[in-house]
Amino acid sequence: MKPKLYCFGESGNAYKVALTLQLSEVDWDPVFVDFFHGESRSDAFRQLNPMGEIPVYVVGDKVLTQSGVILRHIARETGKFGGTNHDEDEEILRWILFDNHKLSGVAGTHRFNRNFLPKSRKNKDVNSFLSMRLNSALKQLERHLEQNDWIALGRPTIADFSCCGYLFYPEPFDFDCKALPNIDRWLTRIEALPHWKHPYDLMPGNPSDRSPGGQND
Amino acid sequence: MKPKLYCFGESGNAYKVALTLQLSEVDWDPVFVDFFHGESRSDAFRQLNPMGEIPVYVVGDKVLTQSGVILRHIARETGKFGGTNHDEDEEILRWILFDNHKLSGVAGTHRFNRNFLPKSRKNKDVNSFLSMRLNSALKQLERHLEQNDWIALGRPTIADFSCCGYLFYPEPFDFDCKALPNIDRWLTRIEALPHWKHPYDLMPGNPSDRSPGGQND
Repeated sequence: MKPKLYCFGESGNAYKVALTLQLSEVDWDPVFVDFFHGESRSDAFRQLNPMGEIPVYVVGDKVLTQSGVILRHIARETGKFGGTNHDEDEEILRWILFDNHKLSGVAGTHRFNRNFLPKSRKNKDVNSFLSMRLNSALKQLERHLEQNDWIALGRPTIADFSCCGYLFYPEPFDFDCKALPNIDRWLTRIEALPHWKHPYDLMPGNPSDRSPGGQND
Repeated sequence: MKPKLYCFGESGNAYKVALTLQLSEVDWDPVFVDFFHGESRSDAFRQLNPMGEIPVYVVGDKVLTQSGVILRHIARETGKFGGTNHDEDEEILRWILFDNHKLSGVAGTHRFNRNFLPKSRKNKDVNSFLSMRLNSALKQLERHLEQNDWIALGRPTIADFSCCGYLFYPEPFDFDCKALPNIDRWLTRIEALPHWKHPYDLMPGNPSDRSPGGQND
């Protein structure tokens, strides 16, 4: 049964899942959700996911939401990139929770505000606040990667694919890779994994579709 | 072996764990962390938890951080308030992730900014932004509780104890219980569980310790 991932290119939370599927060599179909024209707030989408959030992962009659739950599901099904015992699973989940709370949870909002909000709704103080919160989380990760090549175990796991969710995007959001050399090297290691792809090459939709000369604008 | 919980009264993330221990009738010891005088940023505390976050749960030689991981650990050890199969565990984790990302992840910061930051560092625009984000998550929860007495399963689970983490505190943070009747009734159901206690009755330290007439200020 070929799983479907409801996603769009700009969603780092969807990228976590798409990347895990890609690196695990799972055959899957993307279903484009037109987030920027309000599709994820539509009644039809809310029937699929009442939380109104992307990604949604559908396989057979199973509908899963929350990237952390989906990543664990894929790791268990494929036997790749998960823990091999309870303690390892716990360590992986610890970093997935850190990511949801402190890293992607802030990076996603900040990147959206800085790049995709209309100018009239951008707010300098909010941007400074989110930049400060994001860089505090990035510093924790930078310190952790001083001694570790991979986040949770001595090998790549879904904890890495969760934490990197927003960090390959080109739009500026106060993430300065050059100032964070351990994170920079870790991202290079992820990029070097067999079958790695950039979010805009893995999922449909990207900012150029909506640029003045683009098709969908 | 009597577990220790590194905590302080104002921490909703610590309360999630303290409440789960209390409702599960586990005998445990609180270890007060003087967060408001910088103890969680000290080298000694960072040796215990490099993330510098509270709570930390110590049982035997096991040191666990991230409330979501700790809650799952306690549920598994006690056989109470967790899932009884894989699908139930997944549904519980889905809500714990929602809580970390959208609910407590915002409520904790917003409550801190509004109540515990020095006046000179308070920012109206940041407060409005966080209030808007928080109330968007609360509305999702309110809708969900329209049809459900408990969050994840037809009975109380650690998903409830995670999501309620900040919602019993008296300090104002733009959470208006009266405008959210389903959440109000759900909190009343939690309060009615045998052995329930308020955060300030369950963990050491509360704002009155630091008031002008208080001992620690």
